Amino acid sequence: MTRLAIIGPGLLGGSIALAARRAGGFHVAVWARRAEAVAELEKRAIAEIASTDLATVVRDADLVILAVPVGAMGALARQIAAVVPSGAIITDVGSVKAAVVEELSAIFQQRARFVGSHPMAGSEQTGLEAARAGLFDGAACIVTPDSHSDAAAVAAVHHFWETLGCRVLELSPAAHDEIVALVSHFPHLLAAALVNLIGEKHAEAFEFAGPGFRDTTRVASGPPEMWTEILRSNHSAVRAAVEAMIEKLREIVTLLDHDASMNTFLTQAKTQRDQLRLPKSSHA
Amino acid sequence: MTRLAIIGPGLLGGSIALAARRAGGFHVAVWARRAEAVAELEKRAIAEIASTDLATVVRDADLVILAVPVGAMGALARQIAAVVPSGAIITDVGSVKAAVVEELSAIFQQRARFVGSHPMAGSEQTGLEAARAGLFDGAACIVTPDSHSDAAAVAAVHHFWETLGCRVLELSPAAHDEIVALVSHFPHLLAAALVNLIGEKHAEAFEFAGPGFRDTTRVASGPPEMWTEILRSNHSAVRAAVEAMIEKLREIVTLLDHDASMNTFLTQAKTQRDQLRLPKSSHA
Repeated sequence: MTRLAIIGPGLLGGSIALAARRAGGFHVAVWARRAEAVAELEKRAIAEIASTDLATVVRDADLVILAVPVGAMGALARQIAAVVPSGAIITDVGSVKAAVVEELSAIFQQRARFVGSHPMAGSEQTGLEAARAGLFDGAACIVTPDSHSDAAAVAAVHHFWETLGCRVLELSPAAHDEIVALVSHFPHLLAAALVNLIGEKHAEAFEFAGPGFRDTTRVASGPPEMWTEILRSNHSAVRAAVEAMIEKLREIVTLLDHDASMNTFLTQAKTQRDQLRLPKSSHA
Repeated sequence: MTRLAIIGPGLLGGSIALAARRAGGFHVAVWARRAEAVAELEKRAIAEIASTDLATVVRDADLVILAVPVGAMGALARQIAAVVPSGAIITDVGSVKAAVVEELSAIFQQRARFVGSHPMAGSEQTGLEAARAGLFDGAACIVTPDSHSDAAAVAAVHHFWETLGCRVLELSPAAHDEIVALVSHFPHLLAAALVNLIGEKHAEAFEFAGPGFRDTTRVASGPPEMWTEILRSNHSAVRAAVEAMIEKLREIVTLLDHDASMNTFLTQAKTQRDQLRLPKSSHA
């Protein structure tokens, strides 16, 4: 029996509790900031323990999972570090890793063993009401050990996410941040930029948007505050992607004058896009 | 009874024939370059007349529709102009308009009345086998009169597309090209640029792509030769959009340092994206 402490009862925290229950072999405690959330956890019988008191939730934990926004992690981690059992394993679900791993590793280094995680699931829904046991089935989860990580803790966190249904990959925190900047954070910013550019240049054009434009810009409807925080936390990798795109668009200005080169450019994109192994459903 | 001549038996030409038949009141003749296509048209009983001979198809036409790639229109138009009845109305289905309208208006001005059209339907499928009577139901069709257009011909072309099921809007050829550059041609190029940028910088990142990336880049799988031709034909409007995006990305580099401004930027994009009236299905 693994004693699991989940910090935060949102979509991810709630789904982790439900997936752990489905898998079996876990005693689940969940911390929530608000009493209403505790009542909801109790009503849905999602956890053995639900409480607004951190010590109650973490004092016997084998594995603690920080499932709160990146900006809230530091303060909670310091409180947890004061009460968590010596040798416990800690992970998180933040979508940026270099800054988080550096901060939390330092906070926990005296007592516990921290390893960062990023389960890539559920970014568009929010809240406990959307939580479900199957959220992680087939989703990628990136575990981000660094040179100081405890090997047994890395193995345990890796195994934990597999138990919940994830396909687990390991990357350094910096490689993680560069990769998610390219496939998630920067594409979000690019979609927002496209919408704003058209809104400024020729808002009437929106009347003529079709299914291609709908898909290209879908992510621009994501929650601005969450994305502002993500973009700040992954600032340098996102900035590098923006600057790389400025260069790429300068190349395109010259390609526009050369049919043969443009055809090669578009063929290269099509070939790579066609080879992507991507989830089938339109929303996840 | 309107005598309709459709030049080209692809997805659009075939669907126009089927939609006209469904609407009733048309005698339909279709020209195809290849004898195999004529045989297929006859087998599916799509038209009263199917032939590889242009004169046979257009000699009695009231309304001629050029449904061939933009690059093939000029040569066919010159042959049609030699045999079409005096006063016939001509339109096309090309996805760029300023260059097409200029070329075809000049070719037909002695005998017939040309008005450009762009039915915004079916860009991802190709060929007669994909043709269907319902292709235009609810699709936008932009009719592009210029200052020389015959008013009765504009009204007739407008009414024709409505009869086929389209929602018809009128724009000048230049306004059309600027608008489709913004909502279709440039977004296509941007999706291709994003895929190629990642392929060059960090191809491993594709392994971590999720549903957001899938939708953002879907159009990059479109046919490169067709898109090369579209981008060439709408060169100046696309180039203006590329240069506007370079400026927008430069602004973003500075926004990345200012949370409050970034939140405003993303909120602006979300508000506009949420207000779009967009088709629901994922492919069209």
